[in-house]
Amino acid sequence: MAGSTFGRQFTITTFGESHGKTIGVVIDGCPAGLSLCETDIQAYLDRRKPGASRFSTQRREPDEVEILSGVFEGRTTGTPICLMVPNTSQRSADYDEIASYYRPGHADYTYDQKYGFRDYRGGGRSSGRETIGRVAAGAVAARILKELGIEVCAFTRSIGPVSIDDSRFDRQAILQTPTCMPDWEASRKAEEYLSDLMAQKDSAGGVIECQITGVPTGIGEPVFDKLDARLAAAVMSIGAVKAVEIGDGTAVSKLTGSQNNDAFYADESGIHKKTNHAGGILGGISDGEPIVLRAHIKPTPSIFQKQETIGRDGQNRVVTIKGRHDPVIVPRAVVVVECMASLALLDLLMANLSARMDGILKFYRD
Amino acid sequence: MAGSTFGRQFTITTFGESHGKTIGVVIDGCPAGLSLCETDIQAYLDRRKPGASRFSTQRREPDEVEILSGVFEGRTTGTPICLMVPNTSQRSADYDEIASYYRPGHADYTYDQKYGFRDYRGGGRSSGRETIGRVAAGAVAARILKELGIEVCAFTRSIGPVSIDDSRFDRQAILQTPTCMPDWEASRKAEEYLSDLMAQKDSAGGVIECQITGVPTGIGEPVFDKLDARLAAAVMSIGAVKAVEIGDGTAVSKLTGSQNNDAFYADESGIHKKTNHAGGILGGISDGEPIVLRAHIKPTPSIFQKQETIGRDGQNRVVTIKGRHDPVIVPRAVVVVECMASLALLDLLMANLSARMDGILKFYRD
Amino acid sequence: MAGSTFGRQFTITTFGESHGKTIGVVIDGCPAGLSLCETDIQAYLDRRKPGASRFSTQRREPDEVEILSGVFEGRTTGTPICLMVPNTSQRSADYDEIASYYRPGHADYTYDQKYGFRDYRGGGRSSGRETIGRVAAGAVAARILKELGIEVCAFTRSIGPVSIDDSRFDRQAILQTPTCMPDWEASRKAEEYLSDLMAQKDSAGGVIECQITGVPTGIGEPVFDKLDARLAAAVMSIGAVKAVEIGDGTAVSKLTGSQNNDAFYADESGIHKKTNHAGGILGGISDGEPIVLRAHIKPTPSIFQKQETIGRDGQNRVVTIKGRHDPVIVPRAVVVVECMASLALLDLLMANLSARMDGILKFYRD
Amino acid sequence: MAGSTFGRQFTITTFGESHGKTIGVVIDGCPAGLSLCETDIQAYLDRRKPGASRFSTQRREPDEVEILSGVFEGRTTGTPICLMVPNTSQRSADYDEIASYYRPGHADYTYDQKYGFRDYRGGGRSSGRETIGRVAAGAVAARILKELGIEVCAFTRSIGPVSIDDSRFDRQAILQTPTCMPDWEASRKAEEYLSDLMAQKDSAGGVIECQITGVPTGIGEPVFDKLDARLAAAVMSIGAVKAVEIGDGTAVSKLTGSQNNDAFYADESGIHKKTNHAGGILGGISDGEPIVLRAHIKPTPSIFQKQETIGRDGQNRVVTIKGRHDPVIVPRAVVVVECMASLALLDLLMANLSARMDGILKFYRD
Repeated sequence: MAGSTFGRQFTITTFGESHGKTIGVVIDGCPAGLSLCETDIQAYLDRRKPGASRFSTQRREPDEVEILSGVFEGRTTGTPICLMVPNTSQRSADYDEIASYYRPGHADYTYDQKYGFRDYRGGGRSSGRETIGRVAAGAVAARILKELGIEVCAFTRSIGPVSIDDSRFDRQAILQTPTCMPDWEASRKAEEYLSDLMAQKDSAGGVIECQITGVPTGIGEPVFDKLDARLAAAVMSIGAVKAVEIGDGTAVSKLTGSQNNDAFYADESGIHKKTNHAGGILGGISDGEPIVLRAHIKPTPSIFQKQETIGRDGQNRVVTIKGRHDPVIVPRAVVVVECMASLALLDLLMANLSARMDGILKFYRD
Repeated sequence: MAGSTFGRQFTITTFGESHGKTIGVVIDGCPAGLSLCETDIQAYLDRRKPGASRFSTQRREPDEVEILSGVFEGRTTGTPICLMVPNTSQRSADYDEIASYYRPGHADYTYDQKYGFRDYRGGGRSSGRETIGRVAAGAVAARILKELGIEVCAFTRSIGPVSIDDSRFDRQAILQTPTCMPDWEASRKAEEYLSDLMAQKDSAGGVIECQITGVPTGIGEPVFDKLDARLAAAVMSIGAVKAVEIGDGTAVSKLTGSQNNDAFYADESGIHKKTNHAGGILGGISDGEPIVLRAHIKPTPSIFQKQETIGRDGQNRVVTIKGRHDPVIVPRAVVVVECMASLALLDLLMANLSARMDGILKFYRD
Repeated sequence: MAGSTFGRQFTITTFGESHGKTIGVVIDGCPAGLSLCETDIQAYLDRRKPGASRFSTQRREPDEVEILSGVFEGRTTGTPICLMVPNTSQRSADYDEIASYYRPGHADYTYDQKYGFRDYRGGGRSSGRETIGRVAAGAVAARILKELGIEVCAFTRSIGPVSIDDSRFDRQAILQTPTCMPDWEASRKAEEYLSDLMAQKDSAGGVIECQITGVPTGIGEPVFDKLDARLAAAVMSIGAVKAVEIGDGTAVSKLTGSQNNDAFYADESGIHKKTNHAGGILGGISDGEPIVLRAHIKPTPSIFQKQETIGRDGQNRVVTIKGRHDPVIVPRAVVVVECMASLALLDLLMANLSARMDGILKFYRD
Repeated sequence: MAGSTFGRQFTITTFGESHGKTIGVVIDGCPAGLSLCETDIQAYLDRRKPGASRFSTQRREPDEVEILSGVFEGRTTGTPICLMVPNTSQRSADYDEIASYYRPGHADYTYDQKYGFRDYRGGGRSSGRETIGRVAAGAVAARILKELGIEVCAFTRSIGPVSIDDSRFDRQAILQTPTCMPDWEASRKAEEYLSDLMAQKDSAGGVIECQITGVPTGIGEPVFDKLDARLAAAVMSIGAVKAVEIGDGTAVSKLTGSQNNDAFYADESGIHKKTNHAGGILGGISDGEPIVLRAHIKPTPSIFQKQETIGRDGQNRVVTIKGRHDPVIVPRAVVVVECMASLALLDLLMANLSARMDGILKFYRD
């Protein structure tokens, strides 16, 4: 596979460039009989749409999705679902200059090295717009997960130095704050921080957390397709992510075994763990507790300060990037993390269907 | 794929349980004509062999590898290479008790939930012994990388609170300290820390870093098979890893764009970057600078203190684990991280062979 | 993978239904730097376009392809290429009746059994229109093969009882006869045969042959991805194909070893075989001689006679199919066979790039 | 994947050469809870064992299988199952000579071209002994199919010009005649034919048929992973197979639609077809009727007559092959065809588990 396909059974193949005609995705392996319409998907796309706040690029794209195949009379048919979003706001002129040099922190240089040339308009395939396909497909995955009683919820944990306080966690705020923080107070501080950075023509990074509840035990395939390994691959494949943590993540390296082990216990409602340092995954398999992961997002590389770099001609030069860029990627990436986690999880839920003889016999004999 | 296969072109499939007859791996897709003998592989296996220091399990296993196929007259033939290590020290009696309960921090519970029952002897398939197959295959990958001028070097960055000081970095120390730290002084402190923990019947975690030099630019397949995504999956699939960082990793979430961007520059020796916050990867593709990743390892879950858990019967109970267990996994996991990184990288080096028409034409026309 | 993706490195994912909005394909893994425009692809699509002769359905579809991504300034960029053909002639009314019963010889019944319901309009996903995606992608593959000096040529060997005579082989005739036979005389006879069948409201099958010249030796991966195995899968995946032969095919079962073995010989121009019973493949690997395969196509199942079948209600009934259907599929399937063979071959040409250490070293060191 | 792996969910990876230490297979994705022991597998291996009759090579190999992993207390655990058969009768001296030249009809030349050199001992990886891994894995697949009520039965339909008469079909004869024909009379004629050929130092081919009953409707994934496409790939990947037919196969190309369509009808026992020209597959999906396929096997290329060929030095020469070779491969290949068909079918039975929302919901909610 050449890299644009994710998943083994619920597979998605994305296509399209930032300033090409269209961005889209083909989902293959979506089970038949799922109720699905454009509105279901649009709700997710709207969460990553540019222009929603002053901290997101002022490029105006409606990003309206169209279902081109795989749905008949309101339900999925089991055949490939093609979802497409036309690119409408293609101010390529803004980008013409960048054809001639390599922006620091961007993939311009590496694409040229790999392929010999590149579609430089707005970053081409390496643009954040590529995630539209992921989100459209993730919206479909999320619908299936929801029917299975699984809820996937991502939010901004921190932007630069400003972190949320879990005691103020307000889920409603995720969709209402411009930062996608579930904490109104932290969000206000983060907004101030971002305003200051914008004044300095600089940008910020942050941390996105994703919590998944309702996952049955037993999901994840040892040894290379562990649930955490697949989640890590899914999330690390998002452009700006530089670290992925599961459960207590980096903190575990400083803990002792007696601090880090989660004790099992049983009560009338079933088997549980007293703590969840493991983030809901043991040996790569879900243990029934909430799955917790965090993605660390780098600051937007497109800043409006002068920067040193080289041209395509190999000569040193100083450049000032123009165009429309988010001062922070984090809020718009929240739904992308949520969708990639959903896709990874759903694929392993399907893989698990054949884990046991009794399950297979029941399926075919009943 | 059911989880025991890694890679698309250089594929490895591992098999075997801790107390089964044998542990092994089949490599498919190894190019023909590579000089290979058991000694090449044994050197890597010896680095993860138990019993090498007082901080590793006292279980004595020679872990001697045999090449069963795919090599003829000292060279690989292009056909599958089966590598096998017999299990010899199977003191299953030590483990019989654990058949009846779920050890905290282990995969006992989740395997039972997924498969309905489990090979409980020594952790069965979820044992650290499973990594023997990875290391044997990784040794073969490393040989190929070496011929391409690529060097993969992993080491212990920290154990518990004790970190190395980069100013004291001594590469020789990696293979000579019991901690696999490249810093004699830090290693001594870590050894003291571990001795204290052992006295308290507790265990430690730590951080492994892996640096890869000599990687050509252009390696990694956008968008889901980015080099960092595949490295993350490779490393996160190792049992005790709970976080993976690329380059500056978690630190980037607090940096600004002007701090985090790596400026390109050209001099007579070619194109370089002034800094390497990105860890050698831009847009998922290698940029020619050293690739840097870190894996955060949890403390060994098998501790000799009393722990609360439940039995297979679903009843709450208090247990004390017996047997032979490492007080810290980190030193023995160093070579595993190195091998998984090598496997991920080699696979993408192969994928890149078909990235450009000129490369394909040259291959077939010359 | 859920079935709509073909290939490992040059992968294609098709989507779309007969009466949906569009039919298309995403190609992932196309090497960068290939000159490509719509005209290149349209030429192939025109060969399968309906309405070209009185032996093909009178449904009028322009079947015009649009390149939506992956091409920039006339060359492929290495990123996914989405090709799309809108469906314009959607006379669904013709098909409404078939919602209520299962046409003999069609996939109506099996789709309903598998998925619980189906897009019945024009056969939905099981329609021959699905092959548009294959042909569009195959046209791209063919361009690459051509640059490698490989020529793929399919033609009609027989329709019903009428076979071509190899002594009259005229390659020009393939594109000029309504039967795609390379023999004007045989074509005239076949046309008469078809006219008679149409008068009887019946339909015909036939045999398509594909010859591939210029293939380097060494293509094909033992043991499951043999060149013949992959060609067989590629061709058998075309709707109406019921048998695939390589080289002498079914005839070999009656030959003796001394009759069937192809003797090697060397002359000043290199190594050759005196005969080519094997069809250019030995042990699943190309041997440098022309590759020869044949596909046996069943007669069009949509005939206008009365037929017995059952309704969706499970009741027996007699039906008469209406609509626009080819009395023979063979001529329009010729280009589909050619394209599937091209796709299978190209994918294995890419796989072979990593077969040998010297090839890999040369690629990365030069 | 480099070619030695078959299947997506029930995956098998074979390894080993004719004269290497061992031949084997790793099965990944076998569901947990299947009762399995060596005897189950040995019964299948004994059917392909050499030396069983005078028409099979007199090489004496016990071909005893050992289960090395994945089974605990008599049941599969869901983890990889490694099955191994040591090579014991390695009279490599017989084969030393063939190091120097290319046997007509064998893969010697193509392996050398692909890989630069080859393990020439007994054909190395291209030997028929490679099928041991397929048969061992197929035996496991067959056990699962049997529990699902599916029976896979292959037999010899013809050897050279001698075909069975369906009116004399006696299933017991398959395991009792040296030809594996289900017809005692035809077998006797075939034995005479073979004796004559052996006297002439020549060899024969033949046809193997495989019938599969009890397959549920709905198995097969459109469009590229159709049941017939996967069966074709599975069977064509067996060394000597040159053609694969489904149902009426090659005969359909001469039939008309009215002759070839299978009428559906319903009675109290359910939905059926009056005929089964389609061989149980419509649109690539099983229709509930018996699945029928035929493989055409070429005559053994190792004959003891003088043959023209070239040496590794590129010089023309005349050779006479020595060693121990079957005068006909067909009888020993019967179980290989049966196993490959079983593997292809089982893999698609697993893929089908996620075809519908209701199936997934039922699995996870019950």
